[in-house]
Order: sequence, then C-alpha cells, then structure tokens
Amino acid sequence: MRTIIVGGVAGEMSAATRLRRLDEEMDIVIIEKGPYVSFANCGLPYYVSGEISNRDDLLVQTPEKLKARFNLDVKVETEVISVDADKKEVTLSHNGQTEVMSYNKLVLSPGAKPFIPPLDGINDATNLFTLRNVPDVDNVMTYLDHHKPKKAVVIGAGFIGLEMAENLVHRGLEVTIIEMAPHVLPTVDAEMASFITNELRAKGVNVLTSQGVVAMENNGQTLVLNTGEKIGTDLVLMSVGVRPENGLAESAGIELGMRGGILVDDSYETSVKDIYAVGDAIIVKNQINNEDAMIALASPANRQGRQVADVIAGMPRKNKGSIGTAIVRVFEQTIASTGLTEKQVKDLGYKYHVVHVDGKNHAGYYPGASMIFLKLIFNPTTGKIYGAQAVGKEGADKRIDVLATAIKGGLTVEDLPELELTYAPPFGSAKDIVNMVGYAALNIIEGLAENIQLSELEQAKENGAVLVDVRTPEEFEQGTIEGFVNLPLNEIRQRANELPKDKEIILSCQSGQRSYIAQRMLAQMGYDVKNLDGSYLLYKAINGIS
Amino acid sequence: MRTIIVGGVAGEMSAATRLRRLDEEMDIVIIEKGPYVSFANCGLPYYVSGEISNRDDLLVQTPEKLKARFNLDVKVETEVISVDADKKEVTLSHNGQTEVMSYNKLVLSPGAKPFIPPLDGINDATNLFTLRNVPDVDNVMTYLDHHKPKKAVVIGAGFIGLEMAENLVHRGLEVTIIEMAPHVLPTVDAEMASFITNELRAKGVNVLTSQGVVAMENNGQTLVLNTGEKIGTDLVLMSVGVRPENGLAESAGIELGMRGGILVDDSYETSVKDIYAVGDAIIVKNQINNEDAMIALASPANRQGRQVADVIAGMPRKNKGSIGTAIVRVFEQTIASTGLTEKQVKDLGYKYHVVHVDGKNHAGYYPGASMIFLKLIFNPTTGKIYGAQAVGKEGADKRIDVLATAIKGGLTVEDLPELELTYAPPFGSAKDIVNMVGYAALNIIEGLAENIQLSELEQAKENGAVLVDVRTPEEFEQGTIEGFVNLPLNEIRQRANELPKDKEIILSCQSGQRSYIAQRMLAQMGYDVKNLDGSYLLYKAINGIS
Repeated sequence: MRTIIVGGVAGEMSAATRLRRLDEEMDIVIIEKGPYVSFANCGLPYYVSGEISNRDDLLVQTPEKLKARFNLDVKVETEVISVDADKKEVTLSHNGQTEVMSYNKLVLSPGAKPFIPPLDGINDATNLFTLRNVPDVDNVMTYLDHHKPKKAVVIGAGFIGLEMAENLVHRGLEVTIIEMAPHVLPTVDAEMASFITNELRAKGVNVLTSQGVVAMENNGQTLVLNTGEKIGTDLVLMSVGVRPENGLAESAGIELGMRGGILVDDSYETSVKDIYAVGDAIIVKNQINNEDAMIALASPANRQGRQVADVIAGMPRKNKGSIGTAIVRVFEQTIASTGLTEKQVKDLGYKYHVVHVDGKNHAGYYPGASMIFLKLIFNPTTGKIYGAQAVGKEGADKRIDVLATAIKGGLTVEDLPELELTYAPPFGSAKDIVNMVGYAALNIIEGLAENIQLSELEQAKENGAVLVDVRTPEEFEQGTIEGFVNLPLNEIRQRANELPKDKEIILSCQSGQRSYIAQRMLAQMGYDVKNLDGSYLLYKAINGIS
Repeated sequence: MRTIIVGGVAGEMSAATRLRRLDEEMDIVIIEKGPYVSFANCGLPYYVSGEISNRDDLLVQTPEKLKARFNLDVKVETEVISVDADKKEVTLSHNGQTEVMSYNKLVLSPGAKPFIPPLDGINDATNLFTLRNVPDVDNVMTYLDHHKPKKAVVIGAGFIGLEMAENLVHRGLEVTIIEMAPHVLPTVDAEMASFITNELRAKGVNVLTSQGVVAMENNGQTLVLNTGEKIGTDLVLMSVGVRPENGLAESAGIELGMRGGILVDDSYETSVKDIYAVGDAIIVKNQINNEDAMIALASPANRQGRQVADVIAGMPRKNKGSIGTAIVRVFEQTIASTGLTEKQVKDLGYKYHVVHVDGKNHAGYYPGASMIFLKLIFNPTTGKIYGAQAVGKEGADKRIDVLATAIKGGLTVEDLPELELTYAPPFGSAKDIVNMVGYAALNIIEGLAENIQLSELEQAKENGAVLVDVRTPEEFEQGTIEGFVNLPLNEIRQRANELPKDKEIILSCQSGQRSYIAQRMLAQMGYDVKNLDGSYLLYKAINGIS
C-alpha cells in the first residue's frame, strides 16, 4: 500500500504523520515542489522585520527528521507533472529527470497561490514580490538588504498585506497600502475595519481605499492608480488574494467548483476515485449557512489533513465543514472574526440584527485595562449566532475563541449570558463582554431594547427624528455627532417633558450603555425611542476622530 | 410596589439596576450593613501590594450616584435585624435607631463570610485578619503601615490565600502558607496544583501542606501546628474558606440546605413566598452532574442578580445552574479550572478518563511562547466533558474559557478538534492545545491510545511492567523517572526486538507526545504498551524538580 501526498504545508504534514501513526507498514511518500517540506508560513511576515530573527525558526521539519521519526519518504524540489488516474500512477519531475510512481491513494494538498493581476507593465517590474513560502521571503529579504528601499507599496489589505505593512514599517520603510475595496480587511465589516485603518494611519501608514493599481511603469517604480494618480515606490508587495492551486487536479480530470476550488465529498475524496484533496484549495461547507465556501486558513487545513489520514486508514471520519475564524495583529490593535460578516448575512438575504458593545479586556480597576469593541450578528427570532468580530489591544482573541466555540456548539444569544468565564482582576470581568453582548442581543430579542445603526441615522434624521446625546455636558462639549442635542442621563427623569412624544427619539452616548439606560426610562414613559448602536465611540472610529 | 434588596456586592447591584431598567416606577431600596454599597471585592488583595494603588478604584459606586442614575434608595451602615414574612415587613437598624419597612418583594444577597475556626487563643490574637470587604483591607493596610510586620502566615491556600500571599511578598514580607489539604488550591487536582506550589516556592514562599494550625499563642505571634511545631509570625491572614451568611434567612424561617446554604427554586424564590435569594449563599444545581452545589464566584452571582430582577418584573427567566469556572494568578503562573475536578468525578463514582497535554500559548516560532499544561476529564464512552484545568504563564484563561463554553454547550471530546480558534503567530497555533487535548482524548475513546497515570505507576511496576523513556540519550542523562530505561524514539523501529512481547511496556518522554508516537509503532507491532500521561514534565512538577 502506498499513499502519495502532494504539496502543501499544513494539510500535508498532518496527513502524513497521522497516517504513519495509524499504519506502520504503509509506504508514505511526500512530494514537495519547493525546497522546504514544512515551514511556518504564517510566520513569514515577522521574519521581514526581524521580530522572528532566526530563519531556521521558520523551518519546522526536514526530510531527514521526518524519515527518522515517521519513516516518511520526502522528495523536495520535485513536481508531479501528471496523474494517470486509471493506472493510478503519477509522473514526477526532479532536476529534469522524470520518474513514474504508482499509488493506492493520492492526496492533493496544493494550497492556494497569490493572485497576480495582469497589469500593464507588471512583467517589467523588478521590485515586485508576493509572500507564500520561504523562497518568497528570502527574495524580499535579499532585495531589502541589497537595495535598501525607502518606500514600499502593499497592494491589497488582507491579512498578509497588513502584516507585511506593519513589518515593513518596523524595518523603517515608508509604507502605503492600496485596497480596491472600500475598507481594509474586506473579510470583516466596514465599521470594525475602521479601527484598524485608524491604527495604521496613527503609525504612519498611508492607507488608500476604494483605489486600485491599473498599471506599473518604470520597472515597477511607478504605480498608476485607477484615479489617474501615480505613486512612486521602491518595493511592491502584491497581496490581493489567493487562488486555489488547481492545475494538477484539473489535469487529472478532477471536478472543480466555485472559483476553481477542488470539489470533494465529506470523506475528502475528489470526483476521481482514490484521489483525495485537503487544505486551502478545496471547497468546504460553511457550517453556518451550509453553503459552499473556500476558507484558506491553517486551522481547518490541519484538521483536514489529519482527517483524510483517518479516512485512508479506514476510520469513520467526516468533514463537518468550517466556520472560518481569523485574527490579525496590526501594530497595537488586534482584530478577530468568526463566522459570517454582516455583509455576508445581508447578501444572503437573511433576517438579522447586530449589536456593538464595548468593554474592558479585564477588570477596569486593575492596572492596564484596555478597550475591546465587539460586534455580534444574530437572528432576532431564533437567536442563532451568525458571526462576531472583535477589535482591541488585548483579549480580542479570547472573546472570538469563545464565540467561535459557541457557534460550533450551536449556542444561541440566550446562552451567552450563561457562560461562566474565568474571572480574576488580571483576566476578565465578572460580566465579561461576551456575557454583555449576549444581554444586549437578548434585550433586542425580548423587545426591551431597540437600536438603530449609524448607517441608518441619515434616514431617521430625514424622517424628523429628534437626536439626543445623554452624556455629560463636559463630554458633549468635546464633540458629538452632528445634529445631536445634549440631555444628560441623570437629568432625564426631571426633564423628559422637554422631549416630544410624537416623534422618534434617537439616543446616543459614549458607547451605547448610558443611552440604553435612558432608552429604558423613556420607553416606560411612553416615548418612541431608539438607541444608537455603538454611539459616539463607533462614530469617532468610522470618521477617524481621535 | 417596593423591592428591598439586602446586602451583597455583585448580586445586589445587578438586581437593583436591572430592576430599575425594567420598572421605572418601582420603589427599590438597598440595605447594606457596611459603609460601601458596591466595591471591587476581587481587587482587594492587589490593593495590599499597591498594584492597585488608588483606594478609590475599589469603590465602584456610591449611594449618590445610584440615586441620580437609577433612582435607587441606598441605605448603608444599615442592618436588617428581622423579617416578618407574614406582614411582609423588615426591621432595619441604623446608628442604634430602628425602622420598620414593608416590602412586596424581598431579595437577599447576603454572600458568604470567611470562616474563623475556634482555635485556642484566637480571641487574643491582635494580628489576625480576614479579607472580605473594604473595611477588612483597610484594617490590613493600617496594620501593615503601623506595625511594619516582617513575617506573615496565610492560613488556607485557596484563591484569596494565594493572592494575599503573592501581594504580601510584593510588599516585602516573608510569607508562609499553611494548608490543611494535601496540596494548595484544593479546588483543583493535586498534580495541577503542584505547578503552583513550585511557583510559590520559587518566589520564596514557605508552603506547608497537610498541616493545620491548632492554636494561637502570644496574642497570635505564635502559631501551633498539628505537628506540634510552632511558627512565629507578625501577621496572620485567615482564609480557610467561606460559609454562607445565612443568619437573616434562618431567622426569617427560610429553609436551608447543604452546608447552610439558602434553598431557592429555579426562580430564586426561597421557601418563604416573595422572599428571593441570590449569590454566594444560595444552593444551585451544578449543571454537569445536576447535584446541589454552593459556588461562591462573581460571575454566577452577577447573573443571578440580573435574573432575579427579571423574575420580579414578571419576565420568564430560570436559573439554569452553574458549572463553576475559576482562575488565580500566582506570581508568574496562572491556574484556571472549569467544571468538576478529577477528585470530584472519582468521588461521584463516575466512569472517567483523564488526559494531560502540554503546548505553547502561541506559535513556538514566534518570540515569547510559553508552556500551557492542560488537563481534561471526560467520560470515555460518551465523550462528555466533566472538567478541565490549565496552568501556565499566559493563555490558561483563554483555554479554560473555551472549554467552559464547550461544557455549557454540551460539546463532547469529539467536538474539540473541530473548534476553529483564532490563529496568527502572536495568538495561538494552527492546532491549538484545546484541539490537541481533544485529539488525545479521542484517541483514547477510539482505542488508538491507552494511557496510564503517574499515580498508577507503582502498581504497574509491581506487576512487572517494563518502563521505557523514549527521549534522546542526552535528555535521559539529565534525569528520568526511577526505573525507566532509555530507548530513543527514532531507534524504536530498529530496536523494538529488545523489548519483551509478554510484558506490559510503559512509555515516557518529556510530555507524552513522543511516547504516544512510540506507542502507536509498538502497538502495531503487537506489543502491550501504554503511554505515561504527562510523562517526565508532570513527574518533575509533582516532585518539585526544576
């Protein structure tokens, strides 16, 4: 019995080592196109700044170690150039030599490759880089060392783009980010991404959104934007997304699906018998909406690799799908997300509601507390949690991990206040922000609270709504949202009669908590009143007001 | 309509403010025996060292603020001296004056008070303190300032005892902890607590376990232990546990349950109509085993306070019970737990299994990674998770929060590998330790792995087991568990024939991961082989080997 595993990083190694633990006798061959068989791909950006200083730390395994411990036959710098699925043979190419090797099971773990748009002049660029593997980062490092570039442009503000922007700044470069979408990090919602935009700008990064590069001139030293503007740069990092590396699968006659992803059944078998696929290149079920999805993340890839080994070894194992949980640190801020975004839920046509809540990462009275801003997207009838996003200096990871676990477990909004999370002053709060976001959502479901989003404010104004900021006069003086008048929370019981009962009243405060208290008062007095979700805190973030 | 809420900190304030948001008209009265109505009780130990430097930070609310914002009538330094449940009246005492006040609903949130054992000579002690509230910490601080004590003894190594030990060390005192149980932190299992004992000793704390104080002499300057030994001390902090403050409830004719806890139904109503109780003093259902429990923690108390307000306001709300999630930082180590301990599960007579797994708090190749050691207690047939404990420098809180969420959601061992947690190098690993502990447990459930605990090793030795350490010769030279011989993992395929097939073989390595790989090899070759769970890492911790 021989299993050949082709390419990849996370999925491949999980599959091979698990398969060996399950089957000591099997002939297990790993075919890797590049020079390194297992490396820390998520660590590459941090090597650019020197935060990870030792290149060897990026190299997790070697063929020798894998032979000694797991009896794996690892062939690096070797490419599978064709698959004959009828004969169950692959043809390998190494140093110009070809070799035919038979298999009983073939596992494809090709991953996804950076997309390079066909821009005018791009082929003449001598300063253009992508970042996928160790040779890529070696190329960047060599260029940095030899050419001492001063200015860099990062095209595409996804995870890798933002991490590279930060690490290039740490190296002393002047960095511009150009993103075609209306905001950085298109995988989170616009208002949440605004915190990251502000952080980038505060750290000196030039952030251009809703703009794209249409051509490169002057060997890549000049970028032409869709606005007509030209930008000079010494280095270009292209990170506009990835595409499944589906060439081998396609040539083997394997059926592809959306965006060229490899179709597999829930045992990871492709349309061709005895050929399996795992990792970033496959199409999975999104567990929240049960629709096809491509989720290029390390955690599912590792799980899939292990599970395909179980399948090959004859164990009962099914791919249950993924929800997609991601995180990125951008200088001192971290943003994390799980499940669907509001934009995705809206595009799906689902009935949904969102709440934004702010809180501290740990007890406010314990030194060093910092803010977390948390968004929850949920079904207002069933309480089903569609997704969540958190941003803050510390602790966004923990809250999204808890909410990702809640989503996987099918917990609803009603369960969130019931969660008993670790609390001591250095770690959390007696009512953690995850509990609080549950209370906030439950108040909406149970009809105690009604909120309105900043994006809906203009329409409400046009409809004649009265806008009331319930913060203190001192806070109000320092800035408010246009059109709001001040009526401090502690005076509302006495001064409610100043407000009209025949008009909609919209309340705002710093973050929506005091205005919620005010809302409960006024609603009980018979006013038609709504709470501005996220309030002035979110307004400031969206508008870049510090 | 009047609701009177008596005492407490967390439960009381949650109840009162929620009730106001639900009912603007209700007369809400808070009766507080002490001088402060809402304070940061969990922050008190950190004020002792000055880590929380401003005393005002401990005082969360004032009667004036609560009046202005929530229209609450707060009476401090006021005691309820009797309840007439038939007339629905309480008698209050303030500055020697009494007053009778009627109620529609009465909520008791009395909390729990430190237990003071009736030791010989304790009444003469002038250096004895407990820590429950602000006056308590004021007393400690005054004593520290005036008497400049050099030596302190903390009696009882629970959460407060350990936090006080740390903070007294930070203040420069020489600290001894005396714990009657066989290990510190009786709320976690012995082997997990050993990491904390080692940390305490490394920081200079004298830790005495299985020892108790039987008498105090010399105005508390001399403590007599049950061993006959005498210890001199300048200050004694008594933290041997708490008892429900049930005096008022008892005098009102309310039924009490186990250990004097107040019995309530799932609407928090006591045996006396219209009298409710919440917080540390009530008996709740443990959600894991559905048995009665007393859980003195801030998170459930806050939830209960809010929920009793909902009940009083006529909303549908039930107390679903608690699982008990706790955490304590002890110098540079943190230990957290959720659910039942192994000891509890064993005492309940449940069929259970445990696994111990170590891992990094974030990607090992990213600077600053530190170890987390994680224990999972589960049912080996159903996969039900009974409890979990984690210890480490960073990230123990996050893993226990995830596992607490999994328990609340009824997830099983099989679901843990499926969890998609945030991963970027500064935050986690592609296979988080929570995923890994799930894989480890699943391997046992599915019959791929068989482990043995350190506590079972002696018996196995007596039965003639062969003990094999599969680390490298270099590691083996530096120390191993008594009786183990060395056979490095990478040589097992060649040298397996050196091992007997007719005897049980027990494998050990650093933490159980390499020995698991070896176990899979040998099991497939037909050997009777078990993996020593936790391996040398846990052995070193238990035996205090650094």
